[in-house]
Amino acid sequence: MNDKKSRNYYLSDIPIEEAISKYFNSLESYFKTINFEEIEVTQSNQKITYEPIFAKISSPNFNLAAMDGISINHKSAIGATETSPKILSEKDFDWVDTGDPIDDEYDSVIMIEDISKSNLKEVKIFSSVPPMHNIREIGEDLIQSEMILPENSQINHFDIGVCLAGGVDKIKVKKPLTSKFIPTGSELIHLGENHNKGDLIEFNSFVINGMLNDLGVITNTSHIIKDNKSDIKNEILNAVERYDLIIVSAGSSAGSEDYTKEIISGLGEVIVHGVSIKPGHPVILGKIKNKPVIGLPGYPVSAILINELIIKPLIEKKIKYKTLAIPPIKAKLARKLNSTMGEDEYIRATVGKINKEYIAVPLPGGAGVISSIQKANCLIKIPRNKEGYQKHEIINVNPLTSLQNINNTIICSGSHDLVLDILKSFLLKKGLGYQMAINPIGSLGGLLSIDQNLCHIAGTHIFDPETEQYNITFINKFVKNNKVKAINLVDRIQGIITKKNNPSKIESINDFNNENLIFVNRQKGSGTRILLDYLLSTSNINSKNINGYNNEKNSHLAVSYAVQSGNADYGLGIMSAAKAYDLGFVPIKEESFDIVIPENIINEKHIQILIEIINSKEFKNSINKIGGYSTSKTGQEIK
Amino acid sequence: MNDKKSRNYYLSDIPIEEAISKYFNSLESYFKTINFEEIEVTQSNQKITYEPIFAKISSPNFNLAAMDGISINHKSAIGATETSPKILSEKDFDWVDTGDPIDDEYDSVIMIEDISKSNLKEVKIFSSVPPMHNIREIGEDLIQSEMILPENSQINHFDIGVCLAGGVDKIKVKKPLTSKFIPTGSELIHLGENHNKGDLIEFNSFVINGMLNDLGVITNTSHIIKDNKSDIKNEILNAVERYDLIIVSAGSSAGSEDYTKEIISGLGEVIVHGVSIKPGHPVILGKIKNKPVIGLPGYPVSAILINELIIKPLIEKKIKYKTLAIPPIKAKLARKLNSTMGEDEYIRATVGKINKEYIAVPLPGGAGVISSIQKANCLIKIPRNKEGYQKHEIINVNPLTSLQNINNTIICSGSHDLVLDILKSFLLKKGLGYQMAINPIGSLGGLLSIDQNLCHIAGTHIFDPETEQYNITFINKFVKNNKVKAINLVDRIQGIITKKNNPSKIESINDFNNENLIFVNRQKGSGTRILLDYLLSTSNINSKNINGYNNEKNSHLAVSYAVQSGNADYGLGIMSAAKAYDLGFVPIKEESFDIVIPENIINEKHIQILIEIINSKEFKNSINKIGGYSTSKTGQEIK
Repeated sequence: MNDKKSRNYYLSDIPIEEAISKYFNSLESYFKTINFEEIEVTQSNQKITYEPIFAKISSPNFNLAAMDGISINHKSAIGATETSPKILSEKDFDWVDTGDPIDDEYDSVIMIEDISKSNLKEVKIFSSVPPMHNIREIGEDLIQSEMILPENSQINHFDIGVCLAGGVDKIKVKKPLTSKFIPTGSELIHLGENHNKGDLIEFNSFVINGMLNDLGVITNTSHIIKDNKSDIKNEILNAVERYDLIIVSAGSSAGSEDYTKEIISGLGEVIVHGVSIKPGHPVILGKIKNKPVIGLPGYPVSAILINELIIKPLIEKKIKYKTLAIPPIKAKLARKLNSTMGEDEYIRATVGKINKEYIAVPLPGGAGVISSIQKANCLIKIPRNKEGYQKHEIINVNPLTSLQNINNTIICSGSHDLVLDILKSFLLKKGLGYQMAINPIGSLGGLLSIDQNLCHIAGTHIFDPETEQYNITFINKFVKNNKVKAINLVDRIQGIITKKNNPSKIESINDFNNENLIFVNRQKGSGTRILLDYLLSTSNINSKNINGYNNEKNSHLAVSYAVQSGNADYGLGIMSAAKAYDLGFVPIKEESFDIVIPENIINEKHIQILIEIINSKEFKNSINKIGGYSTSKTGQEIK
Repeated sequence: MNDKKSRNYYLSDIPIEEAISKYFNSLESYFKTINFEEIEVTQSNQKITYEPIFAKISSPNFNLAAMDGISINHKSAIGATETSPKILSEKDFDWVDTGDPIDDEYDSVIMIEDISKSNLKEVKIFSSVPPMHNIREIGEDLIQSEMILPENSQINHFDIGVCLAGGVDKIKVKKPLTSKFIPTGSELIHLGENHNKGDLIEFNSFVINGMLNDLGVITNTSHIIKDNKSDIKNEILNAVERYDLIIVSAGSSAGSEDYTKEIISGLGEVIVHGVSIKPGHPVILGKIKNKPVIGLPGYPVSAILINELIIKPLIEKKIKYKTLAIPPIKAKLARKLNSTMGEDEYIRATVGKINKEYIAVPLPGGAGVISSIQKANCLIKIPRNKEGYQKHEIINVNPLTSLQNINNTIICSGSHDLVLDILKSFLLKKGLGYQMAINPIGSLGGLLSIDQNLCHIAGTHIFDPETEQYNITFINKFVKNNKVKAINLVDRIQGIITKKNNPSKIESINDFNNENLIFVNRQKGSGTRILLDYLLSTSNINSKNINGYNNEKNSHLAVSYAVQSGNADYGLGIMSAAKAYDLGFVPIKEESFDIVIPENIINEKHIQILIEIINSKEFKNSINKIGGYSTSKTGQEIK
């Protein structure tokens, strides 16, 4: 497209701790000031107190009757006994209900049970009482001038109630920080704009600003600035005058990032360019007129990580208030992780609790894959002095959500089918807080995971030509360490997925060695790959003759989509995936897609709910609507 | 004040599970419908999906170069080898940077390192490549039509990012419920209104609505309605037409609650009146025109509990979405709890972690004490078939905040001093997430708590007439099971707190037996009470001759405030408490207020930070500003 450009390479490439310390030191005077604002206490939820709050009035602010009865002055009861009661006349007492205020002249309450009514105007009492007897005293809840909240407390609804009880109407809170997000990059367009090839909808601003909002920051986003140096410069200059923090987001295309660095250097100072972390490496930490100006990488995963590791601590230091992170938990790693020495690598993972042990399943996807962020509930860090972690190694993982959410996550490894998405939907629809994480690693991978206690359930569909049965042979062969049950999820039709109306007339496996057509394959260990290799062997076709045999996808939908988008001409997959994109389909085989569950967890509540869903009419009806499936055996125990 | 009224007593008095089941069954058709609204996805944070969301476009929605190099069609590389390279001319390739889109005619990228540039218009390549080589394929992140979110998911910032990446702009979410809060009661006034004796500022609406807002409910509050039946009736009738949920809040005065019941019965049906829980007993669960109308008790603690136990589940059932509660934790009870058989009793507590064991300190205060809600981090339930729990019993407590907050709470039991409030403020000001819960149980109580590992630190000031020393004798006597350190927090002056300018001329302990004056005492086990009893014994005054000797307060400030408010004429306490209300003060003795800390926790981070604060100049300066204190020994190790 364009000529190979020469690029400015990174100024520095330093460990993150060093980068943060260098940067924060350079912002010393920025961190010194905290501003406040005075607001109505009723509007202060989630704000942070700037100074202590004291009760202006007591609560209650008068003495109250703690019993139903009469209020008196204790002196008028002196001398009363069982044998010589005293008679009090109207002017010496009031009738009171529990909660009624007590007149100033009175200081005690005698219970209704302990008096004898002569008439409404006279009562007899039979014992003396001390002062403050049966009185809910002024200040019982709050005493005037008592401290309601210290400085630097985050205010909640209950605090607001106490402030109001204490007669406090306006309070001083820390003034929220303001930030400006400046998206740059010639390939970016706003949501709703016309979409041309190569255009990317700008969404980092919504994600990053949302995360900043959660920290109490008031955010603003500028219009997208195409890679025009003077426009970027003007926008930054304006922002520096009006905001506490400026974030310049690079597009992912080359070039824009270099502008940012050059502009910050010109207007102020670049303190750090390049941190040895992955993703997030090309961050720029600068300052202009003593305001932090940060050049954020364009890839969403990088941007989010830099926000968590650098911008959040910066904000917390500025407002002197830290939200507590959930401490790391120990988890067993479900697969090996490799990492480059010399840089800290951060990998998102789904963690669930299996047999009282946390299992971490690392998510695939690079810096550009925001769906990995959405799916993750934990973050794994591989420090720069390590080459990675072994499978089954017990490592520290950092929760990104509450432990309850993690404890309620069902890990479903193995083969993937659209029906699993429906199952997941039904589980969420229950509204009980249970989650399901689908980890598509193929049928064989799923069985091995079950064997090693690395998942709760596994989907599998492997055909055994010897027994002409699905799954059972393989469960017996690969699952040795766990007693399991297997349940039919659905029967489905495998076949050849072709372009719409099958223009190349691919009719059977015998047409697979046409080298003018591009095939798209499934990954090793998937039931479909095993089926393909079995079909090729029975047809004596060498896989080397299949153009695209090494182009592997992890799901039926991805295969289908490769055909639909033109990246491939055909593939092997299930009928529902072909139907999803209105593609051609040549049926080959009906197969049984089963769910394998270890017996030692099958009675846990979330698993029981899954099984209940699988057996429900509503679930089967949903599947039957898609087409390409049979639910006649759904829910039946296979093993 | 008014004549004793006759009252309607509770319709029923049934267990809460039965009440909820009866009530929810009666609302069956109410629960059937869920409404939706279509909104911009960028405005959907925290909302709940009404239907699944699918990607409209793929992300990326074109093939991208995964490397810097040239993009080609793989066919044009067929036959190229190291020994017989192929030359590609300008029309057969594009120069691409990582991230650049690939033209439709091309399907592979060759890395810049693997080509040889003849000139800008011609390159030499040395091997063939398969299709999709070095390509970041269309749909890598998201495939068009892929499910982004199932129905019934709560949307977060990352989900919004994924939706935008998938070209989704508008989505259907569950329509928020709306609720109307109607405060009734002749004693209630709005914040800011003129305050007369007996008036209470209405604050329940802010607390309850805030809690409902957190569940996504849009709340509205009507004007306060004095106890006027037809006004209440009209307001309810209007609300039933326009809101999903109506809450009628009774004032705490008798009468208003009965109106509510009568009105709901008249307009619809009261399903339950009275549930056997404490507090919260007099709740009314009604419906009018198939809308829930709930009569909430007026006491804030009761109202909050009913909100948690009944209204929250009602909302969750209506929107079919449940927030996960933090599961109960096991904690050791710091004091005995008594409860009445036949009703479930709920008690708020402060829980901290001492030596790896959770310790629950129940908070004092009845249904009217909202400050107990503010201080609590856990809720204890005593079921109706139990008479209570023993001290040291291990019980289930329900966290009201995250476990991290609980783990970071320092429990400070024992004697109370204003300086502890300052210490707490300094701790919060650090912004590290550490909390301090002050549990005023007197000096002796504090020492016993330290001995039994029921608190982290204890404040103490007990004078030993034999050694003429403070604290050490008593630490040695009462703390046997724990090695401890003691640190001087502050020296302070004890004396007689009198009304301003000491009108009754109370000059020494010898004036304490004037029966025309009302004394206010401190609780048993407090250092001040021990001092008083010692002084009385040396002056030969019998405590029976002191009017008000049994009127006990738990803090210096409360003693001072009793004198200031006119409930007492004098008390024994510290100079700073007298100064707080500008009262008279007759000095008696300088005493040493020390902090006792077990050695086995003294090196924990939060305790070290406390000690650091105690030794800081800033802390001492703050204390010296109050007056009545000396910091000359502050921070010194006493033992």
